[in-house]
Amino acid sequence: MKPSNAPITGDTRLFAIVGDPIAQAKSPALFNQLFVDLGVNAVLVPLQIPSARLPVAIAGLKAFANLDGIVVTVPHKVAILEHLDLLGAHAQAVGAVNCMRRLADGRWEGEMYDGAGFVAGLHAQGLCSANWRVFLTGCGGAGKAVAHAMAGAGIAAIRLVDSQLHRQHELAEQLRAIHPRLHVSQGGVADAEHDLAINATPCGMAEGDPLPFAIDKLRPDAIVADLVMKPERTPLLAAAEARGHRIHLGRHLLENQAALVAAFFGAATSLQATPTHGEYP
Amino acid sequence: MKPSNAPITGDTRLFAIVGDPIAQAKSPALFNQLFVDLGVNAVLVPLQIPSARLPVAIAGLKAFANLDGIVVTVPHKVAILEHLDLLGAHAQAVGAVNCMRRLADGRWEGEMYDGAGFVAGLHAQGLCSANWRVFLTGCGGAGKAVAHAMAGAGIAAIRLVDSQLHRQHELAEQLRAIHPRLHVSQGGVADAEHDLAINATPCGMAEGDPLPFAIDKLRPDAIVADLVMKPERTPLLAAAEARGHRIHLGRHLLENQAALVAAFFGAATSLQATPTHGEYP
Repeated sequence: MKPSNAPITGDTRLFAIVGDPIAQAKSPALFNQLFVDLGVNAVLVPLQIPSARLPVAIAGLKAFANLDGIVVTVPHKVAILEHLDLLGAHAQAVGAVNCMRRLADGRWEGEMYDGAGFVAGLHAQGLCSANWRVFLTGCGGAGKAVAHAMAGAGIAAIRLVDSQLHRQHELAEQLRAIHPRLHVSQGGVADAEHDLAINATPCGMAEGDPLPFAIDKLRPDAIVADLVMKPERTPLLAAAEARGHRIHLGRHLLENQAALVAAFFGAATSLQATPTHGEYP
Repeated sequence: MKPSNAPITGDTRLFAIVGDPIAQAKSPALFNQLFVDLGVNAVLVPLQIPSARLPVAIAGLKAFANLDGIVVTVPHKVAILEHLDLLGAHAQAVGAVNCMRRLADGRWEGEMYDGAGFVAGLHAQGLCSANWRVFLTGCGGAGKAVAHAMAGAGIAAIRLVDSQLHRQHELAEQLRAIHPRLHVSQGGVADAEHDLAINATPCGMAEGDPLPFAIDKLRPDAIVADLVMKPERTPLLAAAEARGHRIHLGRHLLENQAALVAAFFGAATSLQATPTHGEYP
C-alpha cells in the first residue's frame, strides 16, 4: 500500500503523534491514509519530543486551536497522564494512554486502544477469541492493555507470567476485580490448555534474544502472537511457524488500532467529514 | 495547479505556519508543493494560534525536535520578536519577521521576506525595478518591508504616504539612513514621475472601501500594484486596468516569497534533500 495524504490547506485539521524517537513511527502513514479513505480534511504529523520537554510541548499543542487530537507513544504513555483532564475506561484500567482528544468544552480526554487494537487485529484475521484460554507473558503497559481488552472481549481464562512478580500480581488482581467471571492464574508455562500464547515483553527486539517462553507444550492448533513489531518475524514467531502454529504479527495491533483511534478522534466535534478535494477538482 | 504533498512518514521533517485566523492561509499548499518539487521529505502544516497563547505555543514548537522552521503571519509578525535569539538584516530594518528557523546551535533566527517576495514577484513578471521611481501608500509592516526591499533592489526614488504621519516620517528616516543614495520624499500624490504605485494599506479588503490613492495623474505606462490579496482584483486594480495600466496582484508576493523562505529553511542543517518516495517505489 502506497501511503498518501490529502493536500494540506489552511483549513486542514491537525493531529500529531508524540514520541521519542519518532522516525520509525508508522502512525503518520496509517492515519493519513485513513483520513483520505474517510474523506476528512485532516493530517497527522510526527513530533519528536524528548521526555524532558514533554510538559512544554503538550502545553504548546493544546494552544493550537486547529489541533484536535494526539497519538501518544513511547516513552510518554504514562507521563502524559498528568496533562489530561479525564480518562476513558481502558486508560483507567491500564494506567496509560495511547491517544488524547480535545473535547467540545476544551478539556482533554485520554484513552488506551493498544489492547483493543490487538483484539481487533485478531478479529480482522478471522479469529474469534470468545472463550479462549490465553497465556500472556509480560505484564507491563502493553501486556496490561492486551489482558484487559481480551478480558473485555470474552476470553474464558488468562495465565500471567512476568519476571517482575509484583507486576504479575497487580495485573491479576486488577483483572479479577474488573472481570469476576474471568479465570486468572499466575506463573507456569504455555501448554496444551492454551488457545493463544502472547509475548508482551520486549524480548525478541534485540538480536540474540532468547525466546520469551517455551512453545513445545502448545497444542498444534494454538496461535502464537508477538507484540514486538520489529523484526516483524521475531525468533518466537519463526519457531512457532516452524512447528506449524498459526502466528499473529505485532503490526496487526497497530494497523487495527489506527481505525479505533481515528474514530475516537472523529467523535470530537471539530473533525467533520468534508469533501477533501473540494477546492481542487 | 493542484497542490500535493509527499506521503508523511515518521521521519518527515516538520514546518508550520502560525497565525489567527489560519484557514485562509495559502502557505501550506505553496510550501508543500515546493517540498515535493525540491525532493525533500518535509511538510508544512497550518497552526491556528490566538495571540494570548503565542508564548506557550512557541515554547511548544521549539520543543519539537523534528521541527525546523516556522512561517509567521498575522497577527504575530511583531509579537514573535521576543521569542527569537537573532534577526536577519531585513527583519532588523522592518522590526518584524515572517519566518524563523532553528540554527545548528539551537538558537532561533527570524527574518522578513515579505518585501523580498514582492520584489521577486515583480522580477518573475519580467519587470526590472532598477532606477524606478516608486509611490507607496501605507507605512505599516507590509509597506516597510516592501520599501526596504525595493530600496535594496536599486530603485532611484520613493514617495511615502501614510495617514499616520509618524509612521511615514519614521520609515523615511530609516530608508535615508540605510540607503543614502535613495531619494525619499513624503506626502503628495501618485503622478507622472512614478513608474510604480503600490497600495500597502488594507484599503480594498472590505467592500465599499474607497481607492487608497488617486490614479488619474499616473503615466499610461506606470504599473499599479496592490498588496491586498483578497479580493485578488481590488477596486484599485480594477480601476487601473480600466485605464490601461499594467497591474500587479497581491498573490505574486506570497508565491515568490515561499521559495525564498524555503531556501532560508533549507539553509538549516536538518533539511536535507533526500529522495521523498524512497520507501514507496
